[in-house]
Amino acid sequence: MKCKKCAGPAALELRRHNAAFCSPHFIEFFRKQVAEAIHKHRMFTRDEPILVAVSGGKDSLALWDALLEDGYQTAGLYLDLGIFDYSQESKAKCEAFAASRGLKLYVERVADTVGAPIPDVQKATRRPACSACGLSKRYLMNRAALEHGYAVVATGHNLDDEAATLFGSVLNWQMEALPRQSPALPSSHPKLVRRVKPLYRLSELETAAYAFLRGIDYIVEECPFSTGATSLAHKELLNRLEEASPGSKHNFLFGFLDKARPAFERLEDVVLKECSRCGQVTTGEICAFCKLADRVKQHV
Amino acid sequence: MKCKKCAGPAALELRRHNAAFCSPHFIEFFRKQVAEAIHKHRMFTRDEPILVAVSGGKDSLALWDALLEDGYQTAGLYLDLGIFDYSQESKAKCEAFAASRGLKLYVERVADTVGAPIPDVQKATRRPACSACGLSKRYLMNRAALEHGYAVVATGHNLDDEAATLFGSVLNWQMEALPRQSPALPSSHPKLVRRVKPLYRLSELETAAYAFLRGIDYIVEECPFSTGATSLAHKELLNRLEEASPGSKHNFLFGFLDKARPAFERLEDVVLKECSRCGQVTTGEICAFCKLADRVKQHV
Repeated sequence: MKCKKCAGPAALELRRHNAAFCSPHFIEFFRKQVAEAIHKHRMFTRDEPILVAVSGGKDSLALWDALLEDGYQTAGLYLDLGIFDYSQESKAKCEAFAASRGLKLYVERVADTVGAPIPDVQKATRRPACSACGLSKRYLMNRAALEHGYAVVATGHNLDDEAATLFGSVLNWQMEALPRQSPALPSSHPKLVRRVKPLYRLSELETAAYAFLRGIDYIVEECPFSTGATSLAHKELLNRLEEASPGSKHNFLFGFLDKARPAFERLEDVVLKECSRCGQVTTGEICAFCKLADRVKQHV
Repeated sequence: MKCKKCAGPAALELRRHNAAFCSPHFIEFFRKQVAEAIHKHRMFTRDEPILVAVSGGKDSLALWDALLEDGYQTAGLYLDLGIFDYSQESKAKCEAFAASRGLKLYVERVADTVGAPIPDVQKATRRPACSACGLSKRYLMNRAALEHGYAVVATGHNLDDEAATLFGSVLNWQMEALPRQSPALPSSHPKLVRRVKPLYRLSELETAAYAFLRGIDYIVEECPFSTGATSLAHKELLNRLEEASPGSKHNFLFGFLDKARPAFERLEDVVLKECSRCGQVTTGEICAFCKLADRVKQHV
């Protein structure tokens, strides 16, 4: 296999693009896809500071690296979920990444706000950890961005993540989730920052390759709570489709964004107000995060 | 396992309904699902003669049987695709079914209209046989119904068929196909008969069980052209989902029909006119079937 750009030996084949690249040209390709995502969805400008939510994994550190290399002003946000060694190690990866590049890294402990680390939250809610964890992360990302003066949070969600989420929403036709599936969620309230996913055009394999080729030291282990997660089962099914027909995932996600998503956009916007407890944005009286914290307090 | 109704020994477990039935109560359950489908989508009345499209397989003969047993006025329509022994045998099953019950069976040969049997059509179009075959069947069903004075055609599509079709449409977000996915397609033109699918609430396993328990002699072999068909690959994926979580297929199809389909219904109806060649309904000047017949004539 030869690099599509320079005809030198290829390091990576991208079947869905019917292309192969050498290392330097793959890195160029990767950054172009990030730039295309930022441009197409007007995610942010070069004058805006961006808060990058980092987990210590390949995706979010690859994202941070790509944004830095493209000259954006960034700081990192690490949310410490308190998941045993996994959290210790992933935090260390983020700290090392930030320190070696002289970057600011904010650290928030989920336990400080929700009342217990994720393993105890899971026990208190008696439901899969992913749901309470996702809720907590979205809440704390937004709150941290507001506190530290960032108007936009960037996350490392890649094409596989987004296609799997869409797949789950479609299997049950979750009419509230479908219009919210987007590479760029605008701010619909002064206390809600924008959320953007500059890696949505790149597959998991591609972010892993970028992180590897860039020499980024990331945590390879998956979250111990992810075993048996529905999203992983959906990723596996999508991988089978992708193998039989390269480009399936891309067509599924991009077809949705281009053609179907407009059909799901609600005609009237949901009315957002401030939670009577914490002041963060919610559709009800008390936000879902405060309700979760209440349940946790009753059990720990 | 015990029958949910009579507590006698169960013949069949239906995991997605969290129920089991003995033979008589399964047959009752099956017919109730058919009656519910007819009622819910106002498919037809008892005063209307119904043309049942039969292939000789379990689904369409089970449908014909259930409609007969419920007292509907029916005749059968067999479309002879000219697929070697497979068509010979399936036709014989339909003829035997009709003859033993003293029912009218219309037979139409695809080759008489399109110019060649399906194997030659496939060669002429150089595309998977399923696409030309489906087009031909829809065309001939409608034409035969008009000719013989039926306002409605019933087909044996089951839950698995419908879920797999929906899955294929969703993977590529086929915005024209999605609003047309329905258990009951109304007549939107005087030359277009209604098309209904009274088995859409019943799985493939359930129609097979019904056919078996009712002693219906059907062709067990699948169409030889279906090997490797995308719809079969999609059925397999849906079966994996169903196994992991019984009811997945049902939720996917029914959630679409209840919640998502309205979002896809086009605001303006497509303008239908009559094909300048054959007089059947089309959106263009010449209908897709006549174009197919032209291609076939050039090649045979």
